[in-house]
Amino acid sequence: MDLLLELKEIHKKTPSKILLVVLDGVGGLPREPGGPTELAAAHTPNLDRLAAEANLGLFTPVAPGIAPGSGPGHLSIFGYDPFKYRVGRGVLSALGLGVPLGSDDVAVRGNFATLAPDGTVKDRRAGRPSTEENRRVLSKLRAAISAIEDVRIDLYTESEHRFALVLRGPGLGDRVTDTDPQTTGVPPREARAEDPADERSAKTARILNRFVELAREALKDEPVINGVLLRGASKKPAFPTLGEVAGLTPAAVASYPMYRGVAELVGMVPLPLSEGEEDPDRPRTKLEALKVHWSDYDFFYLHFKKTDSKGEDGDFEGKVARIELFDALLPELLALSPDVVLITGDHSTPAVFRAHSWHPVPVLLWGPYLRTDAARRFTEDEAVKGSLGHLVGPVLLPLMLAQAGKLQKYGA
Amino acid sequence: MDLLLELKEIHKKTPSKILLVVLDGVGGLPREPGGPTELAAAHTPNLDRLAAEANLGLFTPVAPGIAPGSGPGHLSIFGYDPFKYRVGRGVLSALGLGVPLGSDDVAVRGNFATLAPDGTVKDRRAGRPSTEENRRVLSKLRAAISAIEDVRIDLYTESEHRFALVLRGPGLGDRVTDTDPQTTGVPPREARAEDPADERSAKTARILNRFVELAREALKDEPVINGVLLRGASKKPAFPTLGEVAGLTPAAVASYPMYRGVAELVGMVPLPLSEGEEDPDRPRTKLEALKVHWSDYDFFYLHFKKTDSKGEDGDFEGKVARIELFDALLPELLALSPDVVLITGDHSTPAVFRAHSWHPVPVLLWGPYLRTDAARRFTEDEAVKGSLGHLVGPVLLPLMLAQAGKLQKYGA
Repeated sequence: MDLLLELKEIHKKTPSKILLVVLDGVGGLPREPGGPTELAAAHTPNLDRLAAEANLGLFTPVAPGIAPGSGPGHLSIFGYDPFKYRVGRGVLSALGLGVPLGSDDVAVRGNFATLAPDGTVKDRRAGRPSTEENRRVLSKLRAAISAIEDVRIDLYTESEHRFALVLRGPGLGDRVTDTDPQTTGVPPREARAEDPADERSAKTARILNRFVELAREALKDEPVINGVLLRGASKKPAFPTLGEVAGLTPAAVASYPMYRGVAELVGMVPLPLSEGEEDPDRPRTKLEALKVHWSDYDFFYLHFKKTDSKGEDGDFEGKVARIELFDALLPELLALSPDVVLITGDHSTPAVFRAHSWHPVPVLLWGPYLRTDAARRFTEDEAVKGSLGHLVGPVLLPLMLAQAGKLQKYGA
Repeated sequence: MDLLLELKEIHKKTPSKILLVVLDGVGGLPREPGGPTELAAAHTPNLDRLAAEANLGLFTPVAPGIAPGSGPGHLSIFGYDPFKYRVGRGVLSALGLGVPLGSDDVAVRGNFATLAPDGTVKDRRAGRPSTEENRRVLSKLRAAISAIEDVRIDLYTESEHRFALVLRGPGLGDRVTDTDPQTTGVPPREARAEDPADERSAKTARILNRFVELAREALKDEPVINGVLLRGASKKPAFPTLGEVAGLTPAAVASYPMYRGVAELVGMVPLPLSEGEEDPDRPRTKLEALKVHWSDYDFFYLHFKKTDSKGEDGDFEGKVARIELFDALLPELLALSPDVVLITGDHSTPAVFRAHSWHPVPVLLWGPYLRTDAARRFTEDEAVKGSLGHLVGPVLLPLMLAQAGKLQKYGA
């Protein structure tokens, strides 16, 4: 069952506007037993006021125990079951770098590696080089390999040992196995078409194998980075858009390429953001973009990244500060008079865990048809008392649409 | 979507140890409105202390309204969707009796029945004979029928009218219809291969039909038990193991054959338990086994049966006493220093209901990455306030693995 596709039959167009705020990785953990989480420690008078009116609950984007990456976490919020709507590793890398992908391009995730003299993998990450070192070596590769057969080879530094490789040319498939053996002490694998009869994927495999060969040749005098491992060859998936399934005209207000890219996959228009604001989350710039385009769209996805970044850094106080910064912006967002507001995270990133975690995130839903519930703040503890309960999987989209009057009843 | 198989991609090996305690049928009901359940009535200072630190929730192993049998309830706890990972009735009977099954053996569930002179079924349970009577009649059958064609016939008393039949021989299939018509006043059915082209199952059907015929002949002078009804012909299913899907090295500490058998189906090693302790749950013996093997495994499933048995007996006080007995053991379990502890039941068996019920059971999860929640005891009422919410289906395994640091994030 795919709830998203069911919406096709029951959605209706209305002028009502939905504001979806994703505070990346906002869910947290206490630093000591009984202590507050980041959300509970933050001073958030505006969020508190909204929470008192709103309905709250907990949200597990993918499944209990699963710490979602940014892709699956966001797809779930947007209404797309991440187990069904899959995005390849290569495409995610390219999206994260803001690399434009045509529908026939094949994106691949690359690792710099160290190979032993016998050709086996000694270090899958080549000692985690600096990003500058990555740039230096990638320039060398770029100079040595610009095309293979009739396919252009584009290389992009990600960070440390990670890079993205994009193949641009005719007749390429993406059902191709990885060269990365995912372990050491064995040689890299040959790329192969998953189905030997699939000539397009066989072409991609042939080009990837040739790339690996040329890269070894080009790097043969490098002391550490002397090989590459490739995985996740993939094309940009063709998902049904939010326009098609829900009749929405949606816009994305995000500054980081990954989130603009995932939003585009579901048919959102990433709004242009003016340059100049120093904060990489650009809160004032995003507010301006919302104001300018408020009448042009009926669904706005507004993303803030730094709650997650501070969590990854283990910076509890920094994460608290980013939550408070959002709280200060909230009255101006509400002044736009959205009909429905949903605030949540794509996953938890507790500062004490320093990584994406599986803990559910609070979700706040505000709109015209609310129950009263006992949750008084947008915190993990209070959300437990909320009337939304514990929501699992891609169910937030229908809840937003329903509050916005954009869904008819299902069945007669 | 099968969450279990997704774990293959994201699990990682760590030395951390998980202790999973299943208190069979532990969920209960109050004896009078407003009264305590068995768990609430029990004096459990050690469980209370752990609950105050832990995260709680409610758990519905299979689906709301569904009272699980031991097989589906446990499979769900172990991470296996019981709607997908099915175990045939014959195999469950054999596992419950501790009968070793080879991968080509076919196990069948048998009923002693009373047939009318015209050959129709008069009583599907032959007046529910005593188990001793069952043994007497089964000996007679065993003497009369030891093999059919090249297939050995093994017969095992279960209880009352129930027995297990195991076919051991070459070329047997298990896609075979039942001879049990599930009603009276009609003759028993012929066993048939579900697919007429399936020669292996046709052989099994032929042997079962011949067995039924020989049994009628052997029992022709019996006044009550003069026929047999067969159903659930099945082979031991080949499930992916917890080692394959989650990288675990798991052990089972259970004294009853059914639970040792189901644990083996998912790749657990049932630990040997020394004889001598009078209590059939052998709590001290199990503790000893845990201590002896603590360094050999990273996942321990510890099962206690008698909470369920007392519930089935309608013995509220007896069930309370079994809960308190577990509570007394808990400090010694925790002294082993597991990294993650999960305590739950495979279903409820309320004493007032005297049977497995569909009511959710409390679940307690303790580990290094906990939220604080309002639940203060391991009881049904308190679990409602817990931060885990209401968990449905095979989601406990990923939650345990995540707490133990054994899962990477899903997607980039």
